[in-house]
Amino acid sequence: MMKIFCLQENLKNALATAERIVGKNLNLPILNNLLLKTDKGRLKISSTNLEIGINYWVSGKIEKEGGITVPARILSSFISNLPNKKIELTVKEDVLYINCENFKAQIKGQDIKEYPIIPIIESPLNNQLDKEILKIGLSQVIGGVAISETRPEISGVLFDFNKNYLKLVGTDSFRLAEKTIFNKNDFQQPIIVPQKTIHEVIKILAEKNSENEKNKSLELFLAPGQIMFDFGNIQMISRLIDGQFPDYQQIIPNNFRASAILNKDEINQIIKVLSLFSGKISDIKFIVNSAKKTVNIFAQNREIGENEAQIEGEIEGKDMEVAYNWRYLLDGLNNISTKKVFWGFNDESLPSVLKPVGDEGYVYVVMPVKAV
Amino acid sequence: MMKIFCLQENLKNALATAERIVGKNLNLPILNNLLLKTDKGRLKISSTNLEIGINYWVSGKIEKEGGITVPARILSSFISNLPNKKIELTVKEDVLYINCENFKAQIKGQDIKEYPIIPIIESPLNNQLDKEILKIGLSQVIGGVAISETRPEISGVLFDFNKNYLKLVGTDSFRLAEKTIFNKNDFQQPIIVPQKTIHEVIKILAEKNSENEKNKSLELFLAPGQIMFDFGNIQMISRLIDGQFPDYQQIIPNNFRASAILNKDEINQIIKVLSLFSGKISDIKFIVNSAKKTVNIFAQNREIGENEAQIEGEIEGKDMEVAYNWRYLLDGLNNISTKKVFWGFNDESLPSVLKPVGDEGYVYVVMPVKAV
Repeated sequence: MMKIFCLQENLKNALATAERIVGKNLNLPILNNLLLKTDKGRLKISSTNLEIGINYWVSGKIEKEGGITVPARILSSFISNLPNKKIELTVKEDVLYINCENFKAQIKGQDIKEYPIIPIIESPLNNQLDKEILKIGLSQVIGGVAISETRPEISGVLFDFNKNYLKLVGTDSFRLAEKTIFNKNDFQQPIIVPQKTIHEVIKILAEKNSENEKNKSLELFLAPGQIMFDFGNIQMISRLIDGQFPDYQQIIPNNFRASAILNKDEINQIIKVLSLFSGKISDIKFIVNSAKKTVNIFAQNREIGENEAQIEGEIEGKDMEVAYNWRYLLDGLNNISTKKVFWGFNDESLPSVLKPVGDEGYVYVVMPVKAV
Repeated sequence: MMKIFCLQENLKNALATAERIVGKNLNLPILNNLLLKTDKGRLKISSTNLEIGINYWVSGKIEKEGGITVPARILSSFISNLPNKKIELTVKEDVLYINCENFKAQIKGQDIKEYPIIPIIESPLNNQLDKEILKIGLSQVIGGVAISETRPEISGVLFDFNKNYLKLVGTDSFRLAEKTIFNKNDFQQPIIVPQKTIHEVIKILAEKNSENEKNKSLELFLAPGQIMFDFGNIQMISRLIDGQFPDYQQIIPNNFRASAILNKDEINQIIKVLSLFSGKISDIKFIVNSAKKTVNIFAQNREIGENEAQIEGEIEGKDMEVAYNWRYLLDGLNNISTKKVFWGFNDESLPSVLKPVGDEGYVYVVMPVKAV
């Protein structure tokens, strides 16, 4: 017998976020639904795919307490197309009645008892993190995370919580990205958060949402095998990945055979253009000339042709040649927002390093490929 | 032994246009190429898929006459990624050498003799049309053209040239769009132009391109089974469709059981929202009430639920009900840019009509569906 009023825009945002994790579940069709329920003076919208669960609280005027579960897609699409006006939601006998201006709709639903419960983690220990800093950090490491689940321990992002800092690390064994965030942490331990959860966290952090923007920081709560991200009016609970993350500190080299400080946009454009001529293993070759202070970049494809470009910069160390998969280079440069990039070159057997000049918190490590 | 200079932007636009009609042709791999050839002080870029052929002239400085044919994708992608500077193109022994700032590339090509000749239609009769008016007219009729080729005669747009006007017509037998353009025509006859050609013509007309914009009108030339669109610095030759277009004048009704003048944006939004609740045949029902001056629109889906909305307007005639496929309605409204739309309703067995109020040149005819 629920009856509530809320604003279209608030409801639309909540439904869009909750709907994103709803998949097509043929075995458990109730998971295609959202749960709507009055909760302490607000409307709580929940969804789960059994790996991730979301609770999203929306402000409104509650006239009668109650709830219902209805198909996610239709509700979300319908509400998103309505004008930004007051919406009346009423529940009678497993039907949701929606009134907004000159629209009157009825959506068939089910009793809320059918819907799985989304747990809330409560713990005396919680780590607080700045939302903006976390968003940038996660965006800088998620790109390199392994897509395949053959090695589940690298199919997520490592959160390595230490007393005074947090390291975020993503790798697929061909490249590795590490971001250091200085932060006092209540609990200290490494955990691996699934890729899909990270994508959802980034999306929520990127959303323009007045309720969300009230709190500058979010809180993390841990339970065995689970983590909860508490954004304020949104809580997301996710399973954690069980496994041992590689010893990333050992992988990051500190010594280089040669190094260069290059204009980031310039080298980025050169790699893009040369990529068209790369070989079967997406390889492009870097030739470092310390005397001339130049790096020549070269791509050759037996069928198509070849292409060469030159870039100047602050270059030190020995003359050398090394080849990379251009995709990994563009991914790395994409995470660097400074004007200049430090490039630490090594021989074919050791990884190279890209770092933003003037931002010590980020390191991108890339393995070379066999040159053509 | 060609050697020429031209500006990156001019070359990029020409390559992008010529490349669009290049398909994957496994039997005749040369058709994956573009033809580059000096021609009377300019560079001519040509492509063909044997149904459509394009010649595109680019300004430049010709130092040595010559030509080559090279793979379309790689050349177009490469040039589009270069800075907007002067480009040097040189041909030596079936290799195209490209120099631009600090980039040096070589692309393997073939002799121009391998490439099919793209004919030019020359005729004393030609119809001149205003580019902007043609672009709008074609955009308004192309949406309803039949996709399938089971009825080839309606798989293109009819150009019905008469002495003082041209009618453009597209239909898939469920709906029909007719646009009248007042124009003095040199040649007078109906021709059917393939859908793909029309899409390319619209794209070229929509391109921002200084050379193209010099001429406000384009010229059409006919030859048996072929048409040539002469845009100025671009010529496009296409085959025509052989067949008898339906007698469209007979299909367009002039009398209606009821009629309404509605706010276009309002009815458009109502249809969008209600579409979510439509039945298996995408049907939504219109209920006209002449006394109350209202139209109620109603959608019902047995599994999901139902939705109703009301719109007011200038309504005349008898009370009635009729149902439509909402997709056809949105397509029709999408082609109407006036604030008000005239809606001529008929019974289930006859088509209805949508017309922009204040623009007599356009008519959209839609067949009803059986109501739920």
